Amino acid sequence: MIKVGIVGGTGYTGVELLRILAQHPGAELTMITSRKEAGTPVADLYPSLRGFLDLPFSDTATADLSQCDVVFYATPHGVAMADAPKMVAAGVKIIDLAADFRLQDPAKFEQWYKLSHSCPDLLAEAAYGLPELNRAAIAKARIVANPGCYPTTMQLGFAPLLKKGLVDASHLIADCKSGVSGAGRKAELGTAFSEASDNFKAYGVTGHRHHPETIEKLQLLSSEPVGLLFSPHLVPMIRGMHSTLYARLKPEALGTDVQALFEDAYRDEPFVDVLPPGSHPDTRSTRASNMLRIAVHRPDAGDTVVLLVVQDNLVKGASGQAVQCMNLMFGLDETAGLRHVPVLP
Amino acid sequence: MIKVGIVGGTGYTGVELLRILAQHPGAELTMITSRKEAGTPVADLYPSLRGFLDLPFSDTATADLSQCDVVFYATPHGVAMADAPKMVAAGVKIIDLAADFRLQDPAKFEQWYKLSHSCPDLLAEAAYGLPELNRAAIAKARIVANPGCYPTTMQLGFAPLLKKGLVDASHLIADCKSGVSGAGRKAELGTAFSEASDNFKAYGVTGHRHHPETIEKLQLLSSEPVGLLFSPHLVPMIRGMHSTLYARLKPEALGTDVQALFEDAYRDEPFVDVLPPGSHPDTRSTRASNMLRIAVHRPDAGDTVVLLVVQDNLVKGASGQAVQCMNLMFGLDETAGLRHVPVLP
Amino acid sequence: MIKVGIVGGTGYTGVELLRILAQHPGAELTMITSRKEAGTPVADLYPSLRGFLDLPFSDTATADLSQCDVVFYATPHGVAMADAPKMVAAGVKIIDLAADFRLQDPAKFEQWYKLSHSCPDLLAEAAYGLPELNRAAIAKARIVANPGCYPTTMQLGFAPLLKKGLVDASHLIADCKSGVSGAGRKAELGTAFSEASDNFKAYGVTGHRHHPETIEKLQLLSSEPVGLLFSPHLVPMIRGMHSTLYARLKPEALGTDVQALFEDAYRDEPFVDVLPPGSHPDTRSTRASNMLRIAVHRPDAGDTVVLLVVQDNLVKGASGQAVQCMNLMFGLDETAGLRHVPVLP
Amino acid sequence: MIKVGIVGGTGYTGVELLRILAQHPGAELTMITSRKEAGTPVADLYPSLRGFLDLPFSDTATADLSQCDVVFYATPHGVAMADAPKMVAAGVKIIDLAADFRLQDPAKFEQWYKLSHSCPDLLAEAAYGLPELNRAAIAKARIVANPGCYPTTMQLGFAPLLKKGLVDASHLIADCKSGVSGAGRKAELGTAFSEASDNFKAYGVTGHRHHPETIEKLQLLSSEPVGLLFSPHLVPMIRGMHSTLYARLKPEALGTDVQALFEDAYRDEPFVDVLPPGSHPDTRSTRASNMLRIAVHRPDAGDTVVLLVVQDNLVKGASGQAVQCMNLMFGLDETAGLRHVPVLP
Repeated sequence: MIKVGIVGGTGYTGVELLRILAQHPGAELTMITSRKEAGTPVADLYPSLRGFLDLPFSDTATADLSQCDVVFYATPHGVAMADAPKMVAAGVKIIDLAADFRLQDPAKFEQWYKLSHSCPDLLAEAAYGLPELNRAAIAKARIVANPGCYPTTMQLGFAPLLKKGLVDASHLIADCKSGVSGAGRKAELGTAFSEASDNFKAYGVTGHRHHPETIEKLQLLSSEPVGLLFSPHLVPMIRGMHSTLYARLKPEALGTDVQALFEDAYRDEPFVDVLPPGSHPDTRSTRASNMLRIAVHRPDAGDTVVLLVVQDNLVKGASGQAVQCMNLMFGLDETAGLRHVPVLP
Repeated sequence: MIKVGIVGGTGYTGVELLRILAQHPGAELTMITSRKEAGTPVADLYPSLRGFLDLPFSDTATADLSQCDVVFYATPHGVAMADAPKMVAAGVKIIDLAADFRLQDPAKFEQWYKLSHSCPDLLAEAAYGLPELNRAAIAKARIVANPGCYPTTMQLGFAPLLKKGLVDASHLIADCKSGVSGAGRKAELGTAFSEASDNFKAYGVTGHRHHPETIEKLQLLSSEPVGLLFSPHLVPMIRGMHSTLYARLKPEALGTDVQALFEDAYRDEPFVDVLPPGSHPDTRSTRASNMLRIAVHRPDAGDTVVLLVVQDNLVKGASGQAVQCMNLMFGLDETAGLRHVPVLP
Repeated sequence: MIKVGIVGGTGYTGVELLRILAQHPGAELTMITSRKEAGTPVADLYPSLRGFLDLPFSDTATADLSQCDVVFYATPHGVAMADAPKMVAAGVKIIDLAADFRLQDPAKFEQWYKLSHSCPDLLAEAAYGLPELNRAAIAKARIVANPGCYPTTMQLGFAPLLKKGLVDASHLIADCKSGVSGAGRKAELGTAFSEASDNFKAYGVTGHRHHPETIEKLQLLSSEPVGLLFSPHLVPMIRGMHSTLYARLKPEALGTDVQALFEDAYRDEPFVDVLPPGSHPDTRSTRASNMLRIAVHRPDAGDTVVLLVVQDNLVKGASGQAVQCMNLMFGLDETAGLRHVPVLP
Repeated sequence: MIKVGIVGGTGYTGVELLRILAQHPGAELTMITSRKEAGTPVADLYPSLRGFLDLPFSDTATADLSQCDVVFYATPHGVAMADAPKMVAAGVKIIDLAADFRLQDPAKFEQWYKLSHSCPDLLAEAAYGLPELNRAAIAKARIVANPGCYPTTMQLGFAPLLKKGLVDASHLIADCKSGVSGAGRKAELGTAFSEASDNFKAYGVTGHRHHPETIEKLQLLSSEPVGLLFSPHLVPMIRGMHSTLYARLKPEALGTDVQALFEDAYRDEPFVDVLPPGSHPDTRSTRASNMLRIAVHRPDAGDTVVLLVVQDNLVKGASGQAVQCMNLMFGLDETAGLRHVPVLP
């Protein structure tokens, strides 16, 4: 059994890791830390875990995680990179659910996260944890940067088109909608029930951290410069993400069978489901599961491909994907612990 | 036109006062204060008011409210009683939407609010602002204590039964359910969307401040000692309150026509609507209006009366009731500014 | 007082007309019909109207509406055009909230609504009821076609850009999101609470009736052929519509001050509010009001204008706009009966 | 592997059975029938099951279920009793999720369900499927009547008090609140999103079918006549049930340690969790799991016990409990296939 630690397990990605790992056949949760909740039984904070988990939170400051095989960082940005040199030296692998190792360009990281990177050498070796596009690198990585939730949908959506150079890469549009849990487990007015319920709004048209991340990764797939408009919106639902993606086929690519392209691209992927033509996937069809679903549209047989991509932002968009990476890093079945049937209704 | 001031207008009861007063035919909003938002136009904080209100927030510390005829306190507990002596001396009437003047027993106030009362003499003269039960006193009061939201439903529900001594006053049960806006406009984890949505829970069975308030006021209506079980619950909706009330008829009262009793009690009340027998009122039938509706049940013709009482917790349960009191205090038509048709759906 | 009739008043646009007209200073509701609810007091079906409306539903088959000055049709498609010749002959004006008089091209109407048009001559004289773009024609019309909800947002959003020829009219994108009440008051599985709540989906990427309507009307504003991608989505909220619109500036128009363009275009409009730069409007900032708000963005100062347009789909998107048209048709103040402050929270 | 059939698998209890059984270690789903969806792959109707279930629906009229070891009836009332004689004769066990075998009194059944019972002899031998109170009978039954959702919470709540005769059995009160999925997967106006969202109401104070069921079963636990007031309410959430139960201790029982009583009663139960004193359980702490949680309160140390009971109405309140019964009937581990960690948030 792999010995697993979690740093910062009180947020939503933390409790989702706990939900998954509590029943993982090849991993054993040995330590979970929290600055604020040290000593509190995890199940006191999350009664949903009563009977599944007997651990208390350990103190982040004093916990010895060097006995773990792998540690997940479900922490604010900056924590994982501070720990990384010590952990790597101790032979512990790291999966960071925050952004410390996502952007390979340290200048971009500093621009968007207002932190200078403390271990650029480790950044250089870190693997970006999107298995469908980077499986080999993840499998041998010591440090994995778990992707952002929006970037996961945008990359898996645009990838088949960009890889083959079929669309105008300079003018991609991603109109994305997220459930409120994406904002984390925080006391904030903007995500209070009375503010966010029975309401809808865009919120980061003027700039969002997932924009540079997505552009950097999409650029790796495209031989032409990538331009991306990204409009995130807040949906009054707890979990779920729906990205509506627009890309224009090049004149010479108008004859492409785009549906077949996507089916071929993801045929062997256990967690990417290309739906039949004409589908409009519900976010709930992925609720509490690691599945991401894509529907391919081409309205009026025109030059624009419209992709509808759905996932559970806390699973494939965060903790499930992190466990998928862990499975790869330790040679386990990639789907181990991740075979939950979506909860519907 | 009555000149109106509002202290602490950034919360939900504050913005609801603004919504009502912005179109009140006999009152003019002349000043609104905030500690944090001084200088900010009100409509910047609440875009819903763009075009209806041009005032900025004044600084609470320096604002001169003595020119107002009446000031509403939509503030935390303790603020109104600190201001009251000065305001009353200046001839300004006060309507406090917090609890400072609700409990006539200062010991109870101190026990539940952890504040000692700073002006017990003014407390003694303050009128409890439930017009249907205390209209005359309100009309001539200098200080009105606007009732709590739950207490409004419990008093208007139990009053007809207690006044006539028809039920066992010692064992009343109120199983109450409130929308989340009742908790106020706050950044709190418990009322975050991802915590409170798609969820239901009780939250104050171990004790709630509206309990002593309700008992004190019900006792005024009953010649026998009042005992009350009060179980508040949190409903995943923004506005709305539903109180399900249980009272046992005394053996000698089993022949009472309870439906007729309620219809008679509230026949002339503009804001209390007794529904036809067999009704199950929706909270939304009162949404954004000052109406409270009551359905009277007596299951299996037994000895227990079950009352279903609904209101909008921010209107009849708070700001609408406060304006209703203002109308009484200044000799206006009691319904002035309060004739909104409920918003349904 | 204008005498008003409503045909088919049991749906959401019907009850919203009732909410507005019950307090309209210049109109008097004299008759409301329903096939199924004839004889039932309106307030029995909609308890929110208790005390505001004493009318019962009249039988649609036998009701004599010829005494009315104007009749609103809040009916399924096809009803208004069947009645129109008779009503017009009797001197009664018609405002149709369905689609019978929206598309000037009868072939398109037949294609999308599976009905052949029964009075193409009256269709030819009907005015399209979007006051901000067609005020003069509405004022003198005998028949007004009230616009669809989505088309209202798309037209008011794209109009300033198209009128001046600033953008590539052939590749407009409208990513639109609607609350569930837009589907009407119907017993349908897809809009059941357990299906639509805590969920998000696109639903008409393969074709939607508001697409040809919008294209026909946008074409009137543009000297170049209009192409429009329209992706409607269903949001788990009752009321509210958010359209995110994308249009690319032509190279020669890159220097345009788009914010100023919009502010100028709508400066005198009582129901169109152009927000300050950088705004992200909430749908709730228009809840239960006739206001439509627009925020103008140009991410990274690039060539694409992103417009965020919000409205209440039942008010500016339906019944409020219809009353606005009525006001114009009868020479009343255009805002009469429509000055509701949005309900927030 | 047990061979399992499901009749009527298109409703919410049906799809929840599928979610559970698709991963049950000791059962294999061999047939699922539907009148309307014969031939349709189950995963076409429920995309959440794509990749987990390859079965199509069989035609209810022609499907041969005699090869199954057990058949679940997730059907309208009346279907299971029509099939039961044939199935029992073929050696197939039956678990009915409808009401056909719940009420042992056929007169009550006819009164409440408007059907005369077609096989009273089989009714007499049927076991009531509440394992915690009837485990032995279930284990040897050929026919199990799966309890209603509300009755499960009321029985598990009141049972420890009634069994010991500690409370006034004649005046129990159950104020119950259910998520909307309890009404089933139906196109009905009352449970439409725009009707049920952002709203709260009671709905069956005048009579509900779970009332006679609960009284009949509670009476088995009590030596005194049981009287029960039952007030169901509809909560705007998909899953979840919260029952607030009130019972008055007899004078001689005032010294009872009620908390300890409940802890002792359920210490060995895998699916009943007695919470620490002072708890207010969320319904979401049971979401998508078979756990039921109980908190015990005694406000102001008075004579009334207040119990807060939560469960997922589709799992412990329906399909999970049915699988728990199946496990007992076939000698499997009672928790097999039912160890889902609740989904939170």
